[in-house]
Amino acid sequence: MAAAIALSRRGRPASAPNPNVGCLIVRDGRVVARGWTQPGGRPHAEAMALAVAGGAARGATAYVSLEPCAHASPRGPCCTDALIAAGIARVVVAAQDPDRRTDGQGVARLRDAGIAVVEGVLSADARAAMAPWWMRQDDGRAFVTLKLATSLDGCIAMADGSSRWITGARARAHGHLERAQHQAILVGRGTLHADAPRLDVRLAGLEDRSPKKLLLTSGKAPAGWTAVASPDAIDDVDSVLVEGGAGAASAFLAADRVDRLLLYRAPILIGGGTPALGDIGLIDLADAHGRWRLADSRLLGSDRLDVYERVREG
Amino acid sequence: MAAAIALSRRGRPASAPNPNVGCLIVRDGRVVARGWTQPGGRPHAEAMALAVAGGAARGATAYVSLEPCAHASPRGPCCTDALIAAGIARVVVAAQDPDRRTDGQGVARLRDAGIAVVEGVLSADARAAMAPWWMRQDDGRAFVTLKLATSLDGCIAMADGSSRWITGARARAHGHLERAQHQAILVGRGTLHADAPRLDVRLAGLEDRSPKKLLLTSGKAPAGWTAVASPDAIDDVDSVLVEGGAGAASAFLAADRVDRLLLYRAPILIGGGTPALGDIGLIDLADAHGRWRLADSRLLGSDRLDVYERVREG
Repeated sequence: MAAAIALSRRGRPASAPNPNVGCLIVRDGRVVARGWTQPGGRPHAEAMALAVAGGAARGATAYVSLEPCAHASPRGPCCTDALIAAGIARVVVAAQDPDRRTDGQGVARLRDAGIAVVEGVLSADARAAMAPWWMRQDDGRAFVTLKLATSLDGCIAMADGSSRWITGARARAHGHLERAQHQAILVGRGTLHADAPRLDVRLAGLEDRSPKKLLLTSGKAPAGWTAVASPDAIDDVDSVLVEGGAGAASAFLAADRVDRLLLYRAPILIGGGTPALGDIGLIDLADAHGRWRLADSRLLGSDRLDVYERVREG
Repeated sequence: MAAAIALSRRGRPASAPNPNVGCLIVRDGRVVARGWTQPGGRPHAEAMALAVAGGAARGATAYVSLEPCAHASPRGPCCTDALIAAGIARVVVAAQDPDRRTDGQGVARLRDAGIAVVEGVLSADARAAMAPWWMRQDDGRAFVTLKLATSLDGCIAMADGSSRWITGARARAHGHLERAQHQAILVGRGTLHADAPRLDVRLAGLEDRSPKKLLLTSGKAPAGWTAVASPDAIDDVDSVLVEGGAGAASAFLAADRVDRLLLYRAPILIGGGTPALGDIGLIDLADAHGRWRLADSRLLGSDRLDVYERVREG
């Protein structure tokens, strides 16, 4: 299942508005096919994997990160029927599909057809890999990742604004990979004017993944940019990477609209530089606790990346 | 040898001005004695271990983190002679003693007595465990550790100065353990007046380890405190822990007098709070790089401790 979930990440963000699902087909202990939701949402992961597997799907086990869909659409048959027709013997499911048209019916139909089904395997991991789609399903809003690249003393630039470079090449490349996994990137007016950022994906083979560019502003946006009046006013994308500066970051935090933090930290001290954040509305220090959980931590060259997720009570 | 080096850490800081050495005596694959430099510098680690080992030292191997001393003193015989007299068959040494009165002569005398000697085993680790003593030998100054406890955005307090608590209980206990390993703790005037810190060691069994209290000030110090006019003006202790605030931390960094950084970081965001540092004299961002090397990283509850060491070219 971990491999199926890793495949699901390949679908981000191009599968939107469809969920990015991963599917692995295993027969006699060997992987016979891999699939993930393709750009625009079709083919689904299961359809792609079944097409690769061909006759090898008969009697095999399918690992899917999301319950197979149970509703036919004008764009093709439902995956539940396709799995049954291909002769799959067993289906292992991570997360149940919250879409009302499936929501348990996919699993039920598989069982009715005599297929063994195991549910709930690594479901939290699967949900995390589909976080933007899930956020749109549950809360009807975009999933927001805030990226901060700071010195050890929490500065995003020197006092004069210079910030090239705080982090090293590997951390910056990782930041480009994150861009490629988001539908949109957002900056504030200060960053637009100071840095004139290209905000494209500078990684070989991923140049066409450069996301939509959003500008947080009460005014108009220049050509090539879309104006966003407030952190709550994002409605046409499911995933946004907030890249800076301190004003935009603080606005999203003050509105409690940040779901994931990417903290790239270089082993340098600046001293008296530009702080990463301005006021975010914190009144009492005690209220700052319990909001962020460390989800990942790794070294990228001599920089450290810590990934935190916002803890929200069900 | 790693065990002998771990023992050497027990001697800090009470062995000063003598080096904190560790000694392990092993016979037939079993540890028969452990020793480390005692408060005030006597007995030496080897003398303590030989006293414990008694007759079991005959034919045994002694692991010592620093070359045994070759000079007798009014306070006792030299360890080289004691090892020979006890019938030790083999001595494994980490670091050579830079003290002119020994400086290779300890090893030479052991060899002259027919003892097998292995040198240079884990010498860098042994030196790190004796860093304050080594700094005093090489550079004639105190070894300075700077402690910073910050939020993820690099704040040491809210804008109104409140800082209780940023880090959790485990990180604070670790901070007390660090206090116990230093001869002195230093704060600036702002911290003295704002927090009236006790700066004692609040760990069971270590209460008597509370270090000397230094105040960075151009004026006089209150009762119980010693005034220090500048980061270069510390001469009667070998190890200092700078605990705050931003002014004192920045003064030591600007003078390039910080050898080790303890960064305790809580998973909280403050926003617009008190920055960890003020101006430290950095002119060009490129100059900030290459100065700090990550030496340790661990989670203390939900906080992270990163330990950085100043990289200095030999």
